[in-house]
Amino acid sequence: MADEPSAPTLHALSRSQAVDPSSQVARFGADEPLELDCGKAIAPWQIAYETYGTLNADKSNAVLICHALTGDQYVASVNPVTGKPGWWERMVGPGCPVDTDKYFVICSNVLGGCMGTSGPASLNPETGEPYALTMPVVTIRDMVRAQARLVDRLGIDTLFAVVGGSMGGMQVLQWAASYPERVFAAVPIATGARHSSQNIAFHEVGRQAIMADPDWCDGAYIEAGKRPVKGLAVARMAAHITYMSDSSLHRKFGRNLQDRDDLTFGFDADFQIESYLRHQGMTFVDRFDANSYLYVTRAMDYFDLAAEFGSLPLAFHDTKTRFCVMSFTSDWLFPTSESRMIVKALNAAAANVSFVEVDSDRGHDAFLLDVPEMFSTIRGFITGAARARGIPAPGPARPAAADAAQTATGGAD
Amino acid sequence: MADEPSAPTLHALSRSQAVDPSSQVARFGADEPLELDCGKAIAPWQIAYETYGTLNADKSNAVLICHALTGDQYVASVNPVTGKPGWWERMVGPGCPVDTDKYFVICSNVLGGCMGTSGPASLNPETGEPYALTMPVVTIRDMVRAQARLVDRLGIDTLFAVVGGSMGGMQVLQWAASYPERVFAAVPIATGARHSSQNIAFHEVGRQAIMADPDWCDGAYIEAGKRPVKGLAVARMAAHITYMSDSSLHRKFGRNLQDRDDLTFGFDADFQIESYLRHQGMTFVDRFDANSYLYVTRAMDYFDLAAEFGSLPLAFHDTKTRFCVMSFTSDWLFPTSESRMIVKALNAAAANVSFVEVDSDRGHDAFLLDVPEMFSTIRGFITGAARARGIPAPGPARPAAADAAQTATGGAD
Repeated sequence: MADEPSAPTLHALSRSQAVDPSSQVARFGADEPLELDCGKAIAPWQIAYETYGTLNADKSNAVLICHALTGDQYVASVNPVTGKPGWWERMVGPGCPVDTDKYFVICSNVLGGCMGTSGPASLNPETGEPYALTMPVVTIRDMVRAQARLVDRLGIDTLFAVVGGSMGGMQVLQWAASYPERVFAAVPIATGARHSSQNIAFHEVGRQAIMADPDWCDGAYIEAGKRPVKGLAVARMAAHITYMSDSSLHRKFGRNLQDRDDLTFGFDADFQIESYLRHQGMTFVDRFDANSYLYVTRAMDYFDLAAEFGSLPLAFHDTKTRFCVMSFTSDWLFPTSESRMIVKALNAAAANVSFVEVDSDRGHDAFLLDVPEMFSTIRGFITGAARARGIPAPGPARPAAADAAQTATGGAD
Repeated sequence: MADEPSAPTLHALSRSQAVDPSSQVARFGADEPLELDCGKAIAPWQIAYETYGTLNADKSNAVLICHALTGDQYVASVNPVTGKPGWWERMVGPGCPVDTDKYFVICSNVLGGCMGTSGPASLNPETGEPYALTMPVVTIRDMVRAQARLVDRLGIDTLFAVVGGSMGGMQVLQWAASYPERVFAAVPIATGARHSSQNIAFHEVGRQAIMADPDWCDGAYIEAGKRPVKGLAVARMAAHITYMSDSSLHRKFGRNLQDRDDLTFGFDADFQIESYLRHQGMTFVDRFDANSYLYVTRAMDYFDLAAEFGSLPLAFHDTKTRFCVMSFTSDWLFPTSESRMIVKALNAAAANVSFVEVDSDRGHDAFLLDVPEMFSTIRGFITGAARARGIPAPGPARPAAADAAQTATGGAD
């Protein structure tokens, strides 16, 4: 792997991307503040994004993709830090279910993130130093507000579709609830209308692991020239377990030993699962900012649409948006019961909703992996919605097997 | 709570208990080494234990209780560090399912533990300093070997019953497999015949959290006068989530806020579940040794009866022991499928086995809580086995409601 950048290089790349991203950036000046749920506002601020495909003349073919906790705007193009392909290249691209030959796809880094949208790793305009904990705590609604400002800036009134999994699905639901007239179709995948007690608990463990690391320096590690790599790695390891199912872990690793024939009677990584988790932890710290991890997990914890609107059906009152809700059988982080709660509320609101529980043993991460039923379902839903919206049909069809042709990489959530 | 000892006092108590426990202690001299699976031996060594009830004349009424990961010998008496009641006082005591009016109950601290049995917090006889990481890594079989030496010392040939949950259940299975002639009845609860990949993963997160704490000092924190409290607390928090079910967390905490009317938009414990987890972490560090946590989790990870015997049925080949295997519907750490694997192997070995899956939404911790069906099942099984063994009936019956009369405290695993 001689061509891969080394960890310090990766980290330096990651730092520079937080401030000056390689992607497109919409900048909002001191006179264009972003008002936040906490009552504060930030200005100037910016949102980093990528686009794919071409906006049509009547601006009716825009699709917004919302990323998950540690995702980014590089949904279908190479990540400039890791050099890896886009995180959802099976879903978004020419001939894919979200077909960039037909749709104009926008994907932005979330507010509070660390890939160029304003967040704790960005420079606080008042001090010229990184915000760190002086960044106000943000919510999923704040993330969506920021996206709406970007969509305004792009001159788009109504999004044809908003699509996302996990925290991306939360944003989808928030879009549909906050801006019902601006969302023609919504695809919330492997998500919930609120963060459960168990999920808050796992996030809290991750945050405590970060904050327990003395190199976290009460959040001011960038100025101190330090990095809470151990704490952030532990946070990632704990989270990563929740992204996989017991059975997929068993199938993938079982109790297999790592490069050895027998137990070593020590605390090295005897088992493959230990080695795998350590690797997940150590690679994560080079591409992600620890304070961003605090902010983005907090935004998820705070998410509770029913609390915002009084009840979940009220969140979708009189909605015209058509929904495709999807869950995975082995997802225990956002189990099917959470999706059913959304579907029941949509039914109570007399909304147009399809619901598919996809059979998969790959746990929560299934939405990022090569799961043909997910692709065919979303392809079908998007195509039907495009017909209803009157978006012209795309060019000649690609080979039918395209959905399953790419190899799985997985792991990013 | 003015009468409760403060944290530093608790910790000092805990340290002294590791070396010089309040309970009974069986000491084995330099000429009585304990041979371990790793190929090393320790000598001199000791095992701390408590007993309840009276051994009958033919020594046929001895019951060994095996404790779980962070348990101790104080199964039915006050813990000298915390001042809290025994961890299984509903199960073990006068008139309880394991009736101390009838049986002679033994409960010892596990090898590798920190309540007086030899472990990393004990003094290394070669140096006079705490073993720390110079303590050899131990296995469940080593724990059981140590217990067998204690049982020998007490002059008992055959145990009437061996009973335990979680890691205690692993010891029960190991007893039945290693010493089939010495176990009349075996009650493995909420356990498995091997540690799963997911369970190893959670343990590895805990160990990494401890070892990431600079106050761990590469294991030599006692000599350094430090304590890796933050790392150990994070480990406990992560583990504690796995002891509860999603639905019990939802029922107990939901998204309720902690002593506040609204979100604070910060990283304090806004939610009750966060406050609860932090409390679990911080109280744990005062009563448990961080290195012991490494050793005992490692022993669980290494447990794999099928690997030891070639197959699980071979582990129980020709066994005369009668088994009562129990699982709980909402236990996702040791789900019913793990118990079924044990039962299938016992069936394949033509063993005498009852299997009960108890309906409970309280997750893995159910075995420590007030679950009447568990008590009545175990009472019935033990009573039947006592009849088969020819142990005289106990005195006059206690009130029938005794099983459910005590209030739940829970939380220790």
